[in-house]
Amino acid sequence: MEEMPPGYRFYPTEEELVCFYLHSQLEGRRMSEINRVIPLLDIYRFEPWQLPKQCGELCYGDPEQWFFFVPRQEREVRGGKPSRTTASGYWKATGSPSYVHSATGKVIGVKKSMVFYKGKAPIGKKTKWKMNEYKAIKQDYPTSVPQLRHELCLCRVYVVSGSLRAFDRRPLVTEMSTSSREIATRIV
Amino acid sequence: MEEMPPGYRFYPTEEELVCFYLHSQLEGRRMSEINRVIPLLDIYRFEPWQLPKQCGELCYGDPEQWFFFVPRQEREVRGGKPSRTTASGYWKATGSPSYVHSATGKVIGVKKSMVFYKGKAPIGKKTKWKMNEYKAIKQDYPTSVPQLRHELCLCRVYVVSGSLRAFDRRPLVTEMSTSSREIATRIV
Repeated sequence: MEEMPPGYRFYPTEEELVCFYLHSQLEGRRMSEINRVIPLLDIYRFEPWQLPKQCGELCYGDPEQWFFFVPRQEREVRGGKPSRTTASGYWKATGSPSYVHSATGKVIGVKKSMVFYKGKAPIGKKTKWKMNEYKAIKQDYPTSVPQLRHELCLCRVYVVSGSLRAFDRRPLVTEMSTSSREIATRIV
Repeated sequence: MEEMPPGYRFYPTEEELVCFYLHSQLEGRRMSEINRVIPLLDIYRFEPWQLPKQCGELCYGDPEQWFFFVPRQEREVRGGKPSRTTASGYWKATGSPSYVHSATGKVIGVKKSMVFYKGKAPIGKKTKWKMNEYKAIKQDYPTSVPQLRHELCLCRVYVVSGSLRAFDRRPLVTEMSTSSREIATRIV
């Protein structure tokens, strides 16, 4: 990995996340290799801004997004609700869960989105930290109702930025007070 | 490269494109390695939809974007305007050129965006094929007006998709007529 040319990075599709990484981890396949990319971590023991340093060694330095396998909590195993509280705030679901599809249109998983709030629920202050939580659907489920694999989920943590893509960087205050129109005529 | 785990792909920042790839090619450094990622091609000899097959071998199969170094045309060298016409249509600039910035906010290049139209100018029909054309700024330019390196540009060709990111695939017609709200209650 260290020999990759510049510009190569971990930028997976949702299908790769669910069908390769999540299923491999669930089934215990190629764990040592996989956990160098996506480690297993109880992310709720950390504040969101502590998570980038916890990411997989093969993703280290990614400024944009960080991936983790998150085990089901004990309280959830016993039938309770998961606790998504950290020392300084809490993660709260936003929007509705949605299906994750393969390239061929097959339903392969479910995605929940969450936002981190600082302070105590329900009056915490919304932050720019977000998360997508993926769960896999049992392969070859026999009923018409898809069954989820609850024992493990895959989380993508990221920071909402102003631009669509953090890679196309634009400084908030441009160093030259020049409009794009002027650029067109000035550059020779 | 063939041994990379799933999800690793060429997904460069604009800074990597300009500072590493474009400058390396301009200065003739590490060409054999670099051209396996981004080949030199007169892209106007091809229709846009023929370009994905012409991309660098280390990017082969990328469904989202394709990169090429494009040499300056002879007519431009002689002082004329570049011709961006293909057999079936033409590329036309859209919007204004803009600066490309490094992570530290330094101006490192200029980006032009183009759209492909089918038919004859100026009455061609707009398509979903787009392109960003990057030119590097001469390093250590002495004047206050940045000087562009016109002899070569780097083009990113892509197809405008409905979603922000082609990787998060959503079928246009969902196979189940289920709203997200229903999913939340149905999945067990």
